Amino acid sequence: MDEVVVTSRIRLARNLSDVPFTIKMNDYDAGLVIDRVRDVISKNKQYKFDFYEIRKLPLLKRQVLIEKHLISPALVSSKIKSAVAIDQNENISIMINEEDHLRIQVLYRGQNIQMAWEDANRIDDFLEEHLPYAYDETWGYLTSCPTNVGTGLRASFMLHLPALTLLGYMKEIIETITKLGIAVRGFYGEGSEVVGNLYQISNQITLGQPEEDIIANVISITNQIIEQERQARLKLLNENRAFIEDKVYRSFGILKYARNISSNEALRLISDVRMGISMGIIKEVTIDKIDVLLNLIQPAMIQDYFGREMTPEERDIKRAELIRKILD
Amino acid sequence: MDEVVVTSRIRLARNLSDVPFTIKMNDYDAGLVIDRVRDVISKNKQYKFDFYEIRKLPLLKRQVLIEKHLISPALVSSKIKSAVAIDQNENISIMINEEDHLRIQVLYRGQNIQMAWEDANRIDDFLEEHLPYAYDETWGYLTSCPTNVGTGLRASFMLHLPALTLLGYMKEIIETITKLGIAVRGFYGEGSEVVGNLYQISNQITLGQPEEDIIANVISITNQIIEQERQARLKLLNENRAFIEDKVYRSFGILKYARNISSNEALRLISDVRMGISMGIIKEVTIDKIDVLLNLIQPAMIQDYFGREMTPEERDIKRAELIRKILD
Repeated sequence: MDEVVVTSRIRLARNLSDVPFTIKMNDYDAGLVIDRVRDVISKNKQYKFDFYEIRKLPLLKRQVLIEKHLISPALVSSKIKSAVAIDQNENISIMINEEDHLRIQVLYRGQNIQMAWEDANRIDDFLEEHLPYAYDETWGYLTSCPTNVGTGLRASFMLHLPALTLLGYMKEIIETITKLGIAVRGFYGEGSEVVGNLYQISNQITLGQPEEDIIANVISITNQIIEQERQARLKLLNENRAFIEDKVYRSFGILKYARNISSNEALRLISDVRMGISMGIIKEVTIDKIDVLLNLIQPAMIQDYFGREMTPEERDIKRAELIRKILD
Repeated sequence: MDEVVVTSRIRLARNLSDVPFTIKMNDYDAGLVIDRVRDVISKNKQYKFDFYEIRKLPLLKRQVLIEKHLISPALVSSKIKSAVAIDQNENISIMINEEDHLRIQVLYRGQNIQMAWEDANRIDDFLEEHLPYAYDETWGYLTSCPTNVGTGLRASFMLHLPALTLLGYMKEIIETITKLGIAVRGFYGEGSEVVGNLYQISNQITLGQPEEDIIANVISITNQIIEQERQARLKLLNENRAFIEDKVYRSFGILKYARNISSNEALRLISDVRMGISMGIIKEVTIDKIDVLLNLIQPAMIQDYFGREMTPEERDIKRAELIRKILD
């Protein structure tokens, strides 16, 4: 798998023209929107969706969907009825009554933004055929938050940037790309901190440019960051090979043998090992396996994996157990 | 092997009556003592000794002998000619012109003080047959330092006390046993710090008691400490099993995978793993193997193992390599 790009994601924000926007919506209207969208989605022949009303989902299951990046925390904390449709491959999710009536999201592993865009576009076209979108000739798609007006598009990459971080270059890079209209977020999206050297890079601006140009701009800037990260890894290898070999292998050793580990520590160690694999140092495990871990070690995912609720203390022990199992 | 007693050691201090003591000795006399002792030792039929004049030994080899506890740093830094006779099993060493003309030392792994005492006694008797010992009817054997007068005997154990250390009991124990005439030292003997939770326990007093009573007293106090350490390990296991399992296995993981490691860090990690094995937690390696490591990771031993001199930086890398090899 891609040594820098962990995931690629497209998100489209859409609203219905004949219902108040979610901020002014009552539960009755919210229910109607859910029913209408569900009805439309069920007619789609290309994808097979599972449909979940958030309020009816157990708390743990909601958290699992958040950790899989299939729904947002905002969808769960919504004051009105909310729902989500998820395709069986878990690449596509359509959130209903989050900040907007519709949030179409497509997420793929690796550098696959084009594929995500094609899927999102196809689903958007299909929904638009059957639902009256709030659209303005001048402004484009109308959204709850003005930052999404126009295309309603967010194209984002989850990038693994351990070398740039280790060399202390990230502050400057973030300053530079922010000026170029790029937003930088942490592993868990908006407002979240960067853990495991995972940075979410996306367009800030949704207006005044065709979708393809917005995506091309994010790709172009991302490609530059990827190149910088690769150069940084080479620099580390050339100038500090002994240090780096020791660092990544110690992290691997701890992951392989720890009996008790928090998710943040696990992310930090996984980040080291992921870099170690990409540098050709660690050969005992693949990036694919490490990326499985990256998802599985999250608090709700751990509980989902073992099929029961756990205290945080128990989770740390079972997390270590799961990591050992997968690395073995 | 013994989970608490790493080594048992007997040392006898002796001097010749017809030569000035080492503090007043010139190089000529020192050479004569060496020749006389060498001559006597060569007649011994029971043990086969190798004989080394310290000044003729390469620096690295001297350091190796110190790290094997076969000679003392004082023998190496002696201003007069000094030498050592070492038996082929490397259990017995006879230092010549250290603080006293003769230092007979016998060292065994594990709880084997009785065997060490028998060997030392036998060699002492043999030497006394052929050499005029400085002996006083009232005081017993005369020595350079008054603390050794009488029996000239030091009986010592190297104890591994990780649980008592972790629980913070060692300060009090050291205070108590010091009052009972017991000296506590570090891994490298007099004046050295405790590393790897290794404590050297020995009698302070050499006068006014038969040798057997001195040894019995050290054994008795040591047995109490061993019992306390066993209880402390049980307490840790019963009250903090998750913490201890994690701690010892993380140390094992780092040892198995690190690419760069100092001797002090290695001793610390080895100490954890040694405790983990004795607690039945770690089953991937034996205490015997760990005790091989305990010796091999020392700076000169590493260079000796790889057959060449190294910078400290290179040593840390080769130490990690050697540890991985032995743990594999």
